[in-house]
Amino acid sequence: MSGASGAADGTGAPSERAPSAADVLRRCRELVRPALVGAVGRLHPWTGEMAAYALGWADTAGTPDPGGSEGKGVRQALAVLGAEAVGADAADAVPGAVAVELVHTFSLLHDDIMDADALRRRRPALWKAYGTGPAVLAGDALLARAVTGLAEARGDRTAAAVRRLCAALNDLVAGQAEDLRFEQRPWCGPGAVGPEQYRSMAEGKTGALLGCALALGAVLGGAPEPTATALDRAGRHLGLAFQAVDDVLGIRGDPATTGKPVRADLRRGKKTHPVLAALAGGGRAARELGTLLACSRRTDDATAERIAALVEEAGGLAATREEARRHLDAARAALRTTPLTPAAVRELDALFTGLADRVR
Amino acid sequence: MSGASGAADGTGAPSERAPSAADVLRRCRELVRPALVGAVGRLHPWTGEMAAYALGWADTAGTPDPGGSEGKGVRQALAVLGAEAVGADAADAVPGAVAVELVHTFSLLHDDIMDADALRRRRPALWKAYGTGPAVLAGDALLARAVTGLAEARGDRTAAAVRRLCAALNDLVAGQAEDLRFEQRPWCGPGAVGPEQYRSMAEGKTGALLGCALALGAVLGGAPEPTATALDRAGRHLGLAFQAVDDVLGIRGDPATTGKPVRADLRRGKKTHPVLAALAGGGRAARELGTLLACSRRTDDATAERIAALVEEAGGLAATREEARRHLDAARAALRTTPLTPAAVRELDALFTGLADRVR
Repeated sequence: MSGASGAADGTGAPSERAPSAADVLRRCRELVRPALVGAVGRLHPWTGEMAAYALGWADTAGTPDPGGSEGKGVRQALAVLGAEAVGADAADAVPGAVAVELVHTFSLLHDDIMDADALRRRRPALWKAYGTGPAVLAGDALLARAVTGLAEARGDRTAAAVRRLCAALNDLVAGQAEDLRFEQRPWCGPGAVGPEQYRSMAEGKTGALLGCALALGAVLGGAPEPTATALDRAGRHLGLAFQAVDDVLGIRGDPATTGKPVRADLRRGKKTHPVLAALAGGGRAARELGTLLACSRRTDDATAERIAALVEEAGGLAATREEARRHLDAARAALRTTPLTPAAVRELDALFTGLADRVR
Repeated sequence: MSGASGAADGTGAPSERAPSAADVLRRCRELVRPALVGAVGRLHPWTGEMAAYALGWADTAGTPDPGGSEGKGVRQALAVLGAEAVGADAADAVPGAVAVELVHTFSLLHDDIMDADALRRRRPALWKAYGTGPAVLAGDALLARAVTGLAEARGDRTAAAVRRLCAALNDLVAGQAEDLRFEQRPWCGPGAVGPEQYRSMAEGKTGALLGCALALGAVLGGAPEPTATALDRAGRHLGLAFQAVDDVLGIRGDPATTGKPVRADLRRGKKTHPVLAALAGGGRAARELGTLLACSRRTDDATAERIAALVEEAGGLAATREEARRHLDAARAALRTTPLTPAAVRELDALFTGLADRVR
């Protein structure tokens, strides 16, 4: 907690070393870890074992897994920084940090089933490792534990925090529903997915929980509602930037870094931002792309490679990088609409930059 | 609401017609219906369509389905009666009634996936009708909506109600985990499932939500904690009776009534009470049953029929009917430990009896 106290002193002295995203994530992970371990320890032993696998703490034999399959912990970090940003102690945010991290893990487990994604962080997805039924159950257990932990937290802000978590949860599930429905829609013409519909889906699927994480930290730290709402808005923009970055990585990312198969999104006909932007751009490449997408039901390696090249040529990747930048700027702007502790804002900035750097 | 007012007058006059379980269920269903429809209407349209199918309101085309596939609504009735039992208005219970009904529907959707149950209430289970991924999503959406609706309800008892719902949810998921794990355990010898382990599983899987339903009604109706806890205990015993009845129906029930394939539990090697009780009874039939169960990996029709006959001969069905009766008595006894409105207690009695009648 020394880092937290040091960072929350509000002096914002320029002589301080600028924190890196990795520093911020590490500090927050260490801070939240005991409570997260405690929450998982309260699960049924079998679902606890699956949760430990899903969180990258252990392999399927329950042996500690130093293979680096743990998530970055962006959401728990946002909760901690949300509290520190409003001048509260990082410890106030911990029940919220645990809740958002568990909800995130729940959503990965269930999304991997829905999307038939067999790989997650370079390992078999939980449903591949333990079976679909057990993975459904593990997700349910994590979700129940997430809400319970927050509902049982001490303090008079708990009820407001639970309402925020629930609202984000509904947005997240609705976003996932949209994403799945998009797969049934045509690439072009009437019924195609428009930019606003894409944005609404991505905000639900990714933005809602990031916004909630920041807001929960603020709410649990005793901030007034408008401050929490400003932080929620910042987190939602961050989520949209994050999703745009993820979409670019889904087309051009190195599987060794992403931990997912190359061009998995293209193979499944996912309506991602780069492809939609490429199609919307017009021109020869966009037309060829439209024809190729309309004709190919099952996408082989060569076709996926050609689609990726056309998306790039038609400006889809550039437009999506621009979309990410735009939302990062909006996230930073949202932070400036409310008075916050400068040291925490610096750490948030570092985090935001680190996430954008993934596609440089 | 005229029925509610009439029943809650507390006179308990012997001249009043004794209500039937069907009357009680119908009255409560009608009372809760508008709020339940409202909650489903707040879902994403696609998950809302799946929820309407799961609730038996519509077929897969979204057309109203008068096929009688709607559930009995035991949980919503318990919530309503929980409020009336503590002298509150039935309307106070409605957010709790909606929440438990949605949680119940969520659990059916996900349990059918985990148990590979293809039929539910005489129709294809949701995962069969819409696919596994969509059914996972629909369950998630219902769970999120259940907690949200309760968390957003007005009144100062909401936070206590949310904590009770969450606790029940954790018990329910842990009970389902136990049930699935039991399938991997031997029928006899070391490692076999003992009566206490069975009871703990069934209390989580079935009792927790029934107890929660009664307690939520009481909590939202302003009852003190000890009253809510007594009602919770009554509901848990009711759940154990309910599960015992279900186990008997799983072996001897008519598929036309149960809506499930005949002897599905036996075919899958489910560790149900009748089989465990039969094995524990000793004697020739128990020994033959033990041998048959130990040897048969895949149970054909003839073997399932023979197992059912041996379970009956070894006293497993009689013991389970006795278990149901014992827990019904305990549920009634729990109601007598706290002062309650006599009219509501009469309706609860009618409900309890109606559930037990299913195996006469």
